[in-house]
Amino acid sequence: LPLKNDPGLIADLVLRGDVRGIARAISLVEDDRPEAAAVLARVFPASGRSLVIGITGPPGAGKSTLVDRMAGHLRRADQSVGIIAVDPTSPFTGGAILGDRIRMQSHATDPGVFIRSMATRGHLGGLAAATGHAIDILSASGKDVVLVETVGVGQDEVEIVGTADVSVVVLVPGLGDEVQALKAGIMEIADVFVVNKADREGVDRVVAEIQAMLSLSMHEGHVPPIVKTVAASDQGVDALISAVRDFRAWAASSGVFERKRREHLDRLLSSTITSSLLARVGAALPAAERDSLLDRMASRALDPYAAAALVLARMGMS
Amino acid sequence: LPLKNDPGLIADLVLRGDVRGIARAISLVEDDRPEAAAVLARVFPASGRSLVIGITGPPGAGKSTLVDRMAGHLRRADQSVGIIAVDPTSPFTGGAILGDRIRMQSHATDPGVFIRSMATRGHLGGLAAATGHAIDILSASGKDVVLVETVGVGQDEVEIVGTADVSVVVLVPGLGDEVQALKAGIMEIADVFVVNKADREGVDRVVAEIQAMLSLSMHEGHVPPIVKTVAASDQGVDALISAVRDFRAWAASSGVFERKRREHLDRLLSSTITSSLLARVGAALPAAERDSLLDRMASRALDPYAAAALVLARMGMS
Repeated sequence: LPLKNDPGLIADLVLRGDVRGIARAISLVEDDRPEAAAVLARVFPASGRSLVIGITGPPGAGKSTLVDRMAGHLRRADQSVGIIAVDPTSPFTGGAILGDRIRMQSHATDPGVFIRSMATRGHLGGLAAATGHAIDILSASGKDVVLVETVGVGQDEVEIVGTADVSVVVLVPGLGDEVQALKAGIMEIADVFVVNKADREGVDRVVAEIQAMLSLSMHEGHVPPIVKTVAASDQGVDALISAVRDFRAWAASSGVFERKRREHLDRLLSSTITSSLLARVGAALPAAERDSLLDRMASRALDPYAAAALVLARMGMS
Repeated sequence: LPLKNDPGLIADLVLRGDVRGIARAISLVEDDRPEAAAVLARVFPASGRSLVIGITGPPGAGKSTLVDRMAGHLRRADQSVGIIAVDPTSPFTGGAILGDRIRMQSHATDPGVFIRSMATRGHLGGLAAATGHAIDILSASGKDVVLVETVGVGQDEVEIVGTADVSVVVLVPGLGDEVQALKAGIMEIADVFVVNKADREGVDRVVAEIQAMLSLSMHEGHVPPIVKTVAASDQGVDALISAVRDFRAWAASSGVFERKRREHLDRLLSSTITSSLLARVGAALPAAERDSLLDRMASRALDPYAAAALVLARMGMS
């Protein structure tokens, strides 16, 4: 497989929108392979042109179905679509694979849709960096819209969705304390709210809770709209896409778009540096020495800060 | 305030179980202050003796109430308790503060309970490291049990709960796709399952779903029990604590406990190194230079890998 080891060829395929090239390039950034830097160097100048939409919310909110319907609507408007689904790490089952299989069904034969699940390998900082690079690869491949879906509502997921051009937070009726519980985290990053499964009882209560919360917060001149959808029966999805485009237009005219993109690049720089440094730590510290450090930590003779200082000294950073 | 700048005094207060010392020490690790290393060096030898219980699950599962009831039961058994609640970052409202206020009510006058919310400052890797150090501080202060509650179900949260001695995953009836959605992430780290709000309709279905999932997975000789609770009316909490202690005893005899503790230390070492390296990156790169790099990235003239390489070269790590 010459493709595997040739960053130039992979980059060219990405720039031509070739599915195999895109898949291989994302694998390189996901696995943090040395070839990833060369691929990104070639494709990065062509990136940054897609509309990047982040979709998050708690489990069971119907995000995957919603993303699937959004892709369908975008395709009918002749827009090409990249989808990145960020799954929590599954050391046992490899959570990403099942997700891909389910998702592929409705768009499997459509070359205008590229779908990829990302699962971290447990590297700190790796998920955010790999997702950022994957967005740039999909953008460089010519996708008009990139949809980034996160399954969780955790810190990494907030960060990933926060790096999108437009962040969509999906809620559903009937989860009692949910809006309250989410308040501290993802609510403030929302540019657009969706109340999905809006044919269920309790939809007005969720909408009222969101409105009450919005009345207390500051959103820089933009009050996030609340769109009701029933993704399973394809209701409200057009309105959602309109709301996303409206926000994008407002963000461009107000300067918010440019600021968001810059913050995104700032975080991507930090997470890329972190990944790179951790790779160097791994290379600088042979397994036997790490074991020896862990033995001393386990006997409580060496604390984590002191152990970290020893490792850094070994890397010539004392 | 001499306390603020004296790691030796802070460490002594921690070792005596002094609330002010504990609070200050955790603030130091949370803010990644240089004094944190000196405090940890002093208190770390006294850490590692608490039973650390991680509690996670989706928003609305009633985790906070459950943690509150568990603390009550442990106190009645004369166990001292430390509680760490990990909230997603809230750049606007400071999510941790509200949480503290609500929690403090039922245990406010009890010196045997120390409660602290942790909110990250957006540092990559910072949440996991700070939480790990906070657990060690509480353990060194003599707390018999440390309860670590995470609000989200994201990558960081999975990692944090996975570093506990016993991981409790809380679910509730009536969240349709929930078990399925969580499958890839937190389900596999569960040592004990709780179905909370077990007076609600649908409890048997959730239990059956968990059992079906467990039948497919491998849990190293231990099948996680499923405990039904109604935390709001204090039902099932004794059974939960028994299940936790049973797992702890089994883990000790099977060697799983020792392995988990070692993995925890391994991750804590990695996250401490990452935090330390990122602090050095911040120090090595003046704001004006970072701005200049971001300008070149924004114009797509410089890709993130190349920018990271420039920063590392500046740190003498080319």
